[in-house]
Amino acid sequence: MTIRVEEPVESRHVGQRHLDRLVMLSDGIFAIAITLSAIELKPEQLPGESLWQAWTVPLYVYFLSFLIIGLVWMIHRRIVSHLRDVDGIGTAINLTLLSLVALMPVVIRFALTHGAQRETVQIYGLGLAITYACVAALWGYLAFIAKLAPDVSRHLARAWLYQPLSVSAFSIAVVFGAGRVWVGVAICALVGISLRWLSSRYQRLDTQKA
Amino acid sequence: MTIRVEEPVESRHVGQRHLDRLVMLSDGIFAIAITLSAIELKPEQLPGESLWQAWTVPLYVYFLSFLIIGLVWMIHRRIVSHLRDVDGIGTAINLTLLSLVALMPVVIRFALTHGAQRETVQIYGLGLAITYACVAALWGYLAFIAKLAPDVSRHLARAWLYQPLSVSAFSIAVVFGAGRVWVGVAICALVGISLRWLSSRYQRLDTQKA
Amino acid sequence: MTIRVEEPVESRHVGQRHLDRLVMLSDGIFAIAITLSAIELKPEQLPGESLWQAWTVPLYVYFLSFLIIGLVWMIHRRIVSHLRDVDGIGTAINLTLLSLVALMPVVIRFALTHGAQRETVQIYGLGLAITYACVAALWGYLAFIAKLAPDVSRHLARAWLYQPLSVSAFSIAVVFGAGRVWVGVAICALVGISLRWLSSRYQRLDTQKA
Amino acid sequence: MTIRVEEPVESRHVGQRHLDRLVMLSDGIFAIAITLSAIELKPEQLPGESLWQAWTVPLYVYFLSFLIIGLVWMIHRRIVSHLRDVDGIGTAINLTLLSLVALMPVVIRFALTHGAQRETVQIYGLGLAITYACVAALWGYLAFIAKLAPDVSRHLARAWLYQPLSVSAFSIAVVFGAGRVWVGVAICALVGISLRWLSSRYQRLDTQKA
Repeated sequence: MTIRVEEPVESRHVGQRHLDRLVMLSDGIFAIAITLSAIELKPEQLPGESLWQAWTVPLYVYFLSFLIIGLVWMIHRRIVSHLRDVDGIGTAINLTLLSLVALMPVVIRFALTHGAQRETVQIYGLGLAITYACVAALWGYLAFIAKLAPDVSRHLARAWLYQPLSVSAFSIAVVFGAGRVWVGVAICALVGISLRWLSSRYQRLDTQKA
Repeated sequence: MTIRVEEPVESRHVGQRHLDRLVMLSDGIFAIAITLSAIELKPEQLPGESLWQAWTVPLYVYFLSFLIIGLVWMIHRRIVSHLRDVDGIGTAINLTLLSLVALMPVVIRFALTHGAQRETVQIYGLGLAITYACVAALWGYLAFIAKLAPDVSRHLARAWLYQPLSVSAFSIAVVFGAGRVWVGVAICALVGISLRWLSSRYQRLDTQKA
Repeated sequence: MTIRVEEPVESRHVGQRHLDRLVMLSDGIFAIAITLSAIELKPEQLPGESLWQAWTVPLYVYFLSFLIIGLVWMIHRRIVSHLRDVDGIGTAINLTLLSLVALMPVVIRFALTHGAQRETVQIYGLGLAITYACVAALWGYLAFIAKLAPDVSRHLARAWLYQPLSVSAFSIAVVFGAGRVWVGVAICALVGISLRWLSSRYQRLDTQKA
Repeated sequence: MTIRVEEPVESRHVGQRHLDRLVMLSDGIFAIAITLSAIELKPEQLPGESLWQAWTVPLYVYFLSFLIIGLVWMIHRRIVSHLRDVDGIGTAINLTLLSLVALMPVVIRFALTHGAQRETVQIYGLGLAITYACVAALWGYLAFIAKLAPDVSRHLARAWLYQPLSVSAFSIAVVFGAGRVWVGVAICALVGISLRWLSSRYQRLDTQKA
């Protein structure tokens, strides 16, 4: 163990290593958030209730949350896989996103203990809206400001920006819906549909060119 | 940190990175599920019981579960190590498998607090059956539909498909057995034995050809 | 699986693998410390308090802690990304740093259950001071004693040494401040400002030369 | 994402990937075991006790355990870094070692809640002995039976086998000591000293030849 590595660490190695570690930290946090979401399930069998009934709601919340974290992970994987390296601001936005992902088990525990109250739905929806807005901010910064994903076409980059923003808009519509603010629901739904339409339009434009 | 990486991110890099991250997320979840299974052990010393007696059942459940998760991990490792890359549907099936692996500590906690009741055995067996069916679905899709493992021979691919399916069949036999549905036990055991026979037959065919 | 890898494992491979694994273990512990910090949040709604009020303090403590762990992680990433490999003493210092990072969720839980008492602030500040001192010790050893980062200029290496030391000094100032030892506050603040000045001076010297 | 990776997955890639994943799973479990050990610390301030007194014992147990897991990790890192690939039995022994590492937080929780009783020391010592015996079994199998570390000299391989075995012997001596079986203490200490002597002798022989 006394023989040292002789190859110099070049600047581009440093950039690559920065990206590699961001990916490792991210996957770690995603993995733990998913597993801790499961551990929050503590089904309690009420009298007169079968075991299967006691497990229904917890399992439903768990698989819903798994779907949500899983989708965020898949979008995150797509974003990061097209980067050459990452800078300080991109890392900061990514860490912010991870801080929201790590909160997911807490939101799930809250939802499981407080039931289907109005405020539960609102907190769940708000958490979702902020998370997807953060995903959009990450991609928007990396692709359009820092220009760290030059191998993705302009059209595709826009499609990938509008997609999470539309999820964000739909989530805020749910928050308004739980509060019975129907004007808010209408506006957010409209914004969400427009964003989704824009997203699929740019995706089509990209496919035609390729 | 101002010098940027100049090498373009090619499409095949993206595919490789997608697979790498799937592996990282998977290993993270396997690792946490295993460690959280351990943390659920809370041996309580009843009066008149020695310390060693209090630890016997929890340790037995723990090592059994470790064996089960460990086997799933080894099969998962074998599947993924033969892939060139992975697509969206394969990722989705893999995430479903991970959602089941992440549930394992909850199932163990349930088994530890509810003892050797009939329903405990059934939930344990059902969880096992679904998990191994999901492993089979993952390999079936990747090898036969998406054709992402072209370096594995047809015979070996079939052997690896029937193997987890047979575990699944034997697990359902246990579920039926706990419910005293002896016809179900007989059918499932028969299916399981047939699948295992098929699996070892294809494995032999592969060895002869090589 | 019977075909063995034929390439020999050279000593420099061993060095690289040692560094790789240190990075993996580190990122694992950072990821779990962050996620477990979140899981400690158990907002309780007191009578007459709205749900949003109950979440304010926990979320504030969480994001503050996330910021602190995130900054330590970013400095750690910068240090390790410039290493060619790592030796036994460097590994030991790194493990000590990780043992402090892993304690962060416990400190946060303590802060959340004990409120804004004097001792809470002191423990938080002391934890911070020791952690950043450990970061400085890691870089100081690797860059100046073991000379494992020969690709970083002397000036930059000094700037990176004084930076975490200044954070350490400011944290001790907070500890003294909570204990109302104003002389201690003054001395520590002075030391902290000097270190920060030194750090930015060496960073400037490095930029001029390059 | 429609362009597929074209390079075939060769058998030696499979071997390398198997080893890579074993490393990833191992580091994940080590990282979580360490962090969960910390989370078990729940210092309670008894009346008339200062805050610092309440934290002394928990922190002592934590850092002791961190040292133990850290040492196992460093030996594990050394073993694995000299492997070219890994086979099924090696994986199984490694998983057994991981199952013991994952139990460490449970042992620590037990030690923290049961205090310095005789049985606490015995369980702690026994856990240590089994873990280090498992480390020795891992290296013994990989180096001497499967011959997967051909780049390590025969002498060094023996030194690395006797070293963990000596820790194991000393730990059993502690178990006997807590039970006041002085003959057992004497025998185990003697075995431990002999093993340590053998280990340093082979290490010297290796250095002389190189």
